Amino acid sequence: MPSFHSLNVDQHAATSSFKLFRFGPVGREKPAVEYPDGTRLEVTAFGSDYNEAFFATNGLPRLRAWLLTHAATCPPVAPTERFGPCVARPSKIVGVGLNYHTHVQEAQVAVPAEPVLFLKATSALAGPFDAIPMPEGSTKLDWEVELAVLIGKEASLVTEAEAPNYIMGYALANDVSERTYQLEGTGEWTKGKSFDGFGPLGPYLVPADQIADPQSLALRLTVNGQERQAANTAEMVFGINHLVSYVSRYMTLLPGDILLTGTPGGVGLGYTPPVFLATGDTVELTGEGLGTQRQLVVPYLERKRALA
Amino acid sequence: MPSFHSLNVDQHAATSSFKLFRFGPVGREKPAVEYPDGTRLEVTAFGSDYNEAFFATNGLPRLRAWLLTHAATCPPVAPTERFGPCVARPSKIVGVGLNYHTHVQEAQVAVPAEPVLFLKATSALAGPFDAIPMPEGSTKLDWEVELAVLIGKEASLVTEAEAPNYIMGYALANDVSERTYQLEGTGEWTKGKSFDGFGPLGPYLVPADQIADPQSLALRLTVNGQERQAANTAEMVFGINHLVSYVSRYMTLLPGDILLTGTPGGVGLGYTPPVFLATGDTVELTGEGLGTQRQLVVPYLERKRALA
Repeated sequence: MPSFHSLNVDQHAATSSFKLFRFGPVGREKPAVEYPDGTRLEVTAFGSDYNEAFFATNGLPRLRAWLLTHAATCPPVAPTERFGPCVARPSKIVGVGLNYHTHVQEAQVAVPAEPVLFLKATSALAGPFDAIPMPEGSTKLDWEVELAVLIGKEASLVTEAEAPNYIMGYALANDVSERTYQLEGTGEWTKGKSFDGFGPLGPYLVPADQIADPQSLALRLTVNGQERQAANTAEMVFGINHLVSYVSRYMTLLPGDILLTGTPGGVGLGYTPPVFLATGDTVELTGEGLGTQRQLVVPYLERKRALA
Repeated sequence: MPSFHSLNVDQHAATSSFKLFRFGPVGREKPAVEYPDGTRLEVTAFGSDYNEAFFATNGLPRLRAWLLTHAATCPPVAPTERFGPCVARPSKIVGVGLNYHTHVQEAQVAVPAEPVLFLKATSALAGPFDAIPMPEGSTKLDWEVELAVLIGKEASLVTEAEAPNYIMGYALANDVSERTYQLEGTGEWTKGKSFDGFGPLGPYLVPADQIADPQSLALRLTVNGQERQAANTAEMVFGINHLVSYVSRYMTLLPGDILLTGTPGGVGLGYTPPVFLATGDTVELTGEGLGTQRQLVVPYLERKRALA
């Protein structure tokens, strides 16, 4: 394999500006890349899914180098293929609550003195166009458009200044939440965050060097075409680098781990009266430079059968 | 491979009553078994660590059958080897809070109407004799002896009556907690539960068919030889089968997932005045039929260096 750094710079620039994605049936997704011209290539022959081992071993530069000589033999991805979550199941998904001033206001709480952390079960991960499940008996199913940060290497006790070195890329996420289970039961938030399908991630994993300023990205979410959230990552209470540093003081972030950076105002719970999702609703969300997700809300058991 | 069910029953009974464990340096543990006579054999040649794939494919009966013909060629495990966590990193560790009446009383809260769930980062997993880290600046480091349940197959919307079919085995756990981070910050409990090393698990994974009644096991924990917790799993608020069923209504439990069933009274926070761990303290815990753990409390960075 040629050394990544020995490649011609122009050649590299022309061919390395791809986004990563995964496609295929649930649980059997294959890795792929999409070039700026829309060309989509399956990269199974590279030999690794986008998982912890991939990120832990400089997967992106290795994949870029590999594609310089192998792209011509990579099969195209059919446009009919399902998009999976843009990374394989990580060791953990760390969520941050109440991290936009507009969301803090609608939640009618004080601005947190430090980041509010929770964990979302990784079994909740879903593709960006998979249906959102409506749990049996649920009455408060809600949406949350978010910027997801993908950790590129093991991060423990990392300073804010060092944090960018530990970020491999970004993705769009819908931190789907059931407010009764999250807030009204006896449990922690995790119970309202961890249903199968509550974690649509993607369509793309966008390498960090393709995002000029992750702290200046427009986020937007509509329900049945009506705008519900419209914000910019500039409005976070705690910035991305601070969050990575903060979390790394309490637990080691592993390569491939996902950090959900919080949702802006405009969630269903924040309306007066509250507005929640119903089966048949369509949620669409977009992140600047990150792509678009679209989800139909269906009964949990129906979704489970369809994905089986 | 011979069919497990075709084996001679006496032969099977004589050779299958082993416990599972893992040994070796951190992150490079190898699978092994311990027979009732104390014989410890490495089973790397079987071809699978004790991970999700192992449990998802009937690993235990396959290992039992394999050992009938391969035990003689398995290398012994040196008594000086480090014990690792008894299973490889699972997809998730689900914790249950306030699940013993004595612990509910000392916490001065009402008996929960339903199980209190939280997630512990899987990066917290540790061997049963690894040091417990004292986080920098921590003042409320606490212990929690618990019965851990190991999920043997995918469990979603499982009834209480069906729950035993989804339990592969049991282990001893110390749900180490930092009370300031858990209870006094702005975050959820997870922040006080997820430090690297806050999840000693083992020494043994004991197959369910070797535990006559998991709801009748003595648990005991001492600090520097002084008894702090002494209880029986019979005293749980919500029983094991109820917990498995309940969790499976909110998220799918995957093979190899761990369910921590809560701690009885006698945690440091429950004493008047509270008693917390200091560096140099030794915690020892025992579960009936599950073995013994012993941990020295050391500064976090010292532990990190020692395990690197």
